[in-house]
Amino acid sequence: MQFALGIDLGGTSTKLALIDAAGHIVARSSFSTSDRTDEHDFFRFLFEGIDGLLAGQDVQLVGIGAGAPSVNEQQGTIENAANLPFSPKVEFVKTVQERYGLPVHLVKDSNASSLGEWHFGAAKGMTNFLLLTLGTGLGCGIVANGRLLGGEFGHGGEAGHICVQPGGRACGCGRFGCLETYVSATGLKRTVFELMSNSLIASPLRSESYDGMTARHIFEAAQSGDELALLAFGKTGEILGRAVADMAAWFEPEAVVMSGGLAMAGDLLFVPTVDSMERHALAFHKGKIKVLPSTLGENDAALLGAAALVWKQ
Amino acid sequence: MQFALGIDLGGTSTKLALIDAAGHIVARSSFSTSDRTDEHDFFRFLFEGIDGLLAGQDVQLVGIGAGAPSVNEQQGTIENAANLPFSPKVEFVKTVQERYGLPVHLVKDSNASSLGEWHFGAAKGMTNFLLLTLGTGLGCGIVANGRLLGGEFGHGGEAGHICVQPGGRACGCGRFGCLETYVSATGLKRTVFELMSNSLIASPLRSESYDGMTARHIFEAAQSGDELALLAFGKTGEILGRAVADMAAWFEPEAVVMSGGLAMAGDLLFVPTVDSMERHALAFHKGKIKVLPSTLGENDAALLGAAALVWKQ
Repeated sequence: MQFALGIDLGGTSTKLALIDAAGHIVARSSFSTSDRTDEHDFFRFLFEGIDGLLAGQDVQLVGIGAGAPSVNEQQGTIENAANLPFSPKVEFVKTVQERYGLPVHLVKDSNASSLGEWHFGAAKGMTNFLLLTLGTGLGCGIVANGRLLGGEFGHGGEAGHICVQPGGRACGCGRFGCLETYVSATGLKRTVFELMSNSLIASPLRSESYDGMTARHIFEAAQSGDELALLAFGKTGEILGRAVADMAAWFEPEAVVMSGGLAMAGDLLFVPTVDSMERHALAFHKGKIKVLPSTLGENDAALLGAAALVWKQ
Repeated sequence: MQFALGIDLGGTSTKLALIDAAGHIVARSSFSTSDRTDEHDFFRFLFEGIDGLLAGQDVQLVGIGAGAPSVNEQQGTIENAANLPFSPKVEFVKTVQERYGLPVHLVKDSNASSLGEWHFGAAKGMTNFLLLTLGTGLGCGIVANGRLLGGEFGHGGEAGHICVQPGGRACGCGRFGCLETYVSATGLKRTVFELMSNSLIASPLRSESYDGMTARHIFEAAQSGDELALLAFGKTGEILGRAVADMAAWFEPEAVVMSGGLAMAGDLLFVPTVDSMERHALAFHKGKIKVLPSTLGENDAALLGAAALVWKQ
């Protein structure tokens, strides 16, 4: 039977899966990326992982697709990846192609997730949508006019670094007020600390350190009705909703799909986001733009999108 | 000889031109739009104008293209146009087609200008660019992946209504802090009045009323070295440059082309805009995004874009 191999190369771990043309994952494995010493070590584990998946199966491999950070899509390389133990320029496509003699496709991780949702998930059949991945930061992939929006140099769709508050929170990118400093797992925590600073609202969250607190703590506090945690989700949704209204002004998507750990908070995030989006939207966008949860989950979206690169080309 | 007829339908006047395939305007005329009583009166003047242009020439008309406000591009209609003396729904394409028996194309005015700059002007040959028209408001047309970005319902690219200052200036759209409340002829004036309010800087502009002041007054004051006027241009460029950095984060265009009355201020606006864009740009966009003046001028861009609809289809 025919399969594509999907690779989701992340800073912590690399996930592999055999996927059929309908988007079913029939086998999967993973290994630690952060424990690798360099790209040679990485490719050794990658090839072992692939060979392992192929070994036990009656498999005809059609091609290999991968999503990764810091990708140069035109060159098929991974360049200057801050969170990978790699040399400045790694020939990913060439190296994998030489080993397997098959078509190999490589896209940015955020684009892989968008392709996954587009072909197999919440955005199936859409011509215009955005996928926001709300994790430690905020990733984004955009489909406009039925095509991935790549930009002139392959760095388009950097929604995490749109300025939503001039002179606002310091961002890891060196600037201030970027969307991901408010809307991400880290942004939610920063909002909790801002609220602890500005308000007198009692909360068990006040007994945790900044370094010790996670989005999960805040989620659990909110679920048990903690006022401070609920306010933090409300403020996060307020800013995200305003940003989604701006996304509508720019792209007028059919939907904005939300994925990643923070999006798992469900109504806690979606309700204030949609409320804020509707208040901030232009008149002709009110009631028109859908805000949808990912139907694939963060991990599988990237794997399925990587496979879609094989099946849809 | 073969010509296209371009129409630039504006709230004040409607401009017509005969244009050859190289983008040369060989004849033009215009009539008042605001003096028309209804669409029937408008079409009477339009047909007279077209017939007049055709009469004296050895012309083979290939097709008719038009740019107008409030266009439904899919339907070929003009709908609920606030600034036109029209019924709620005007069958523009059908009516003109019936009269001349030729292909008729109709797009939004901002898209017509983008097409003009794309085929004949500052953005010639580009795959990714934005055109900003800085007049009373801020209009925008976007080409991404080599195609006009239309959005799901034909209202994409509303750059004038991106929020650049949460809770900022009231906008005609009913919201607050929209880009065009800062970056437009009106926005520049509002900035002058903010500076007169907040500072003690002496200026001849202080002797003019809000209703009496125009962007031209401020431009002339700035040219003669007036500190307040220069500060107003500087602040306008600061906000525009930050917005252009965000446009780069979203679209990563090769260039942002600026047209319209305010863009005629030249260095007074472009220098602080580029300075601010470079400070606010993401690291991989610094030094990469061009900010260019229109080479066609506001009026001819729309006319030439309307003609491009004929020549490029």
